[in-house]
Amino acid sequence: MSKLQTTINAIAPLDEGAMAAARERQDQLTKPRGSLGQLEDISVHIAGIMGDPRPIIKDKVVITVAGDHGIVVEGVSLYPQEVTAQMVLNFLHGGAAINVLARHVGARVVVVDAGVLSDLPEHPDLRICKIARGTRNFAKGPAMTREQAVQSIEVGIEIVEAEIAKGADVVVPGEMGIGNTTPASAIIATFSGLPVAEVTGRGTGLDDAGLAHKIAVIENALAVNRPNANDALDVLSKVGGFEIGVIAGIVLGAAAHRVAVVLDGFICTAGGLIAAELAPAVKPYLFSAHNSVEIGHRAMLERLELTPMLDLGLRLGEGTGAALALSLVEAATKILNEMATFADAGVADKE
Amino acid sequence: MSKLQTTINAIAPLDEGAMAAARERQDQLTKPRGSLGQLEDISVHIAGIMGDPRPIIKDKVVITVAGDHGIVVEGVSLYPQEVTAQMVLNFLHGGAAINVLARHVGARVVVVDAGVLSDLPEHPDLRICKIARGTRNFAKGPAMTREQAVQSIEVGIEIVEAEIAKGADVVVPGEMGIGNTTPASAIIATFSGLPVAEVTGRGTGLDDAGLAHKIAVIENALAVNRPNANDALDVLSKVGGFEIGVIAGIVLGAAAHRVAVVLDGFICTAGGLIAAELAPAVKPYLFSAHNSVEIGHRAMLERLELTPMLDLGLRLGEGTGAALALSLVEAATKILNEMATFADAGVADKE
Repeated sequence: MSKLQTTINAIAPLDEGAMAAARERQDQLTKPRGSLGQLEDISVHIAGIMGDPRPIIKDKVVITVAGDHGIVVEGVSLYPQEVTAQMVLNFLHGGAAINVLARHVGARVVVVDAGVLSDLPEHPDLRICKIARGTRNFAKGPAMTREQAVQSIEVGIEIVEAEIAKGADVVVPGEMGIGNTTPASAIIATFSGLPVAEVTGRGTGLDDAGLAHKIAVIENALAVNRPNANDALDVLSKVGGFEIGVIAGIVLGAAAHRVAVVLDGFICTAGGLIAAELAPAVKPYLFSAHNSVEIGHRAMLERLELTPMLDLGLRLGEGTGAALALSLVEAATKILNEMATFADAGVADKE
Repeated sequence: MSKLQTTINAIAPLDEGAMAAARERQDQLTKPRGSLGQLEDISVHIAGIMGDPRPIIKDKVVITVAGDHGIVVEGVSLYPQEVTAQMVLNFLHGGAAINVLARHVGARVVVVDAGVLSDLPEHPDLRICKIARGTRNFAKGPAMTREQAVQSIEVGIEIVEAEIAKGADVVVPGEMGIGNTTPASAIIATFSGLPVAEVTGRGTGLDDAGLAHKIAVIENALAVNRPNANDALDVLSKVGGFEIGVIAGIVLGAAAHRVAVVLDGFICTAGGLIAAELAPAVKPYLFSAHNSVEIGHRAMLERLELTPMLDLGLRLGEGTGAALALSLVEAATKILNEMATFADAGVADKE
């Protein structure tokens, strides 16, 4: 059996017993029942994922995956394509937003070259796994072959398994790829059947004319490629991206090992969506970090049945919003673990 | 001049120069302009408060203020009054939610006895400043004298000044006081003129009958006391609480020293509201941490012109939501300080 199929088969349901025990403990902690709202729910959810009624998060990892996109020749982004590689170097030097926020929340950052156009230097935090030097321009035909789509997902599975072997117990996939809101919009347009204009936003800051052009490019690309909404590998190969495939693999690999995944914004959620369309059993392993400014994000969240934790007007990517949300997830588990119970503290419960 | 008046007079406008310089730097950092949304705005706001274009937060302090409320004899809370003192002990032993979350975000916790009914033991983290042993039952007459209202505010100023002298550069007021959603609702009903039913919630978990009774108690108390909405000291003394007065003082004292205040939920925002009604110049020094489940909180935020950072369904108090938001404020300042610029990193800006 393929690595992909073995991984999908290994995804189990959440541990209901651990969840019930966690909920019972939440109700004994020195606070009115339910008064910590979503933090209580998150802690119970993590208990179910990790199969432990008092889960402790010890090693938080951000895996930021970079790839280039042939579609940028159509003029869908404000930034030149070289920025993908330049930003990877910025990640490796610790100067990007994801580095700052990961340090702030105590997470490690691993960077993956899933298909950057140019060569990147060796670095201890960089995994070079180029599927190809950028996808092909999917305005003219498929972005990649079906074999490359499977390969990108399997790279993601291998990368996350290596991090889990080192101790990772919560994973944040992140992304960098000039032009990658275009495949993300094409992906959600395909799965949802919504008009392209309803799931396409301004990316790094297109004006009205730029946005109209981007919508036309995507509409044309869908007409050219006719991706099959019932076949997630077909969608990924025809209108996806290498980083999106790797993220789908990270999601599947994490879920197969009972590791929670906190999804960042539009692109990472596109990766989560590919994973969930391949294997609906991953859904309970996912958290949504924040509401992206990109309008197509909402349709993705509806399909994944996820409610975002934060709404801070973010649209950067890299994993930044999910790094912030990771801190909330950890806070939730600490509440469950570290708070005194009414009995411990000699506090009277309600009358 | 009184301590209160001196403090109010010392509150200056934000530093526009520092804000402009911070905004300029944000626009040079390696990300699309504006792509970190509220985090960018928060960093600029903190620059204006601290008068520093690259502000660094070094010492975060949560000051959780406890007080008892005579109004609880009217049956407005599910928990017995002894819980206020029991929870103070829980704070001092580190077992409450605020301890867990403050540790998580790297903040110190200072506890203040502003008017707990019973005696509390000496402890290095406890400031015993009892204005009285609980307020009087404001269903029958004023909760406290006007002198006690001023005294409570001045206690808050002194406490925050002592913490600022030790290095505090961002402050989170927190609160504990069985029954204290009742004065908070009475305060916002007075200032806003809204019907009591529109600003009164379930507190620690009242059922429908309990909520209806609480609304009737507050309506009656407002009729008995007739607090003057144009005189915040009159409102605090007639329908307030000692912890609410101390929090108002913490807010005023922090603003007078250019220290940002992150307001937690319903009770702390009531304290912020008293401060802002006394001295509208404090408003720019305030952040709202989160949307409380208590319905009266929204009317307070409208009056204070604040937008909450988080919406996690919290209704615990103690400063818990603000501790989480403190981490976002610190993250925002780190983005401003630690990220590489396009020039630093050799990354191309948009075309």
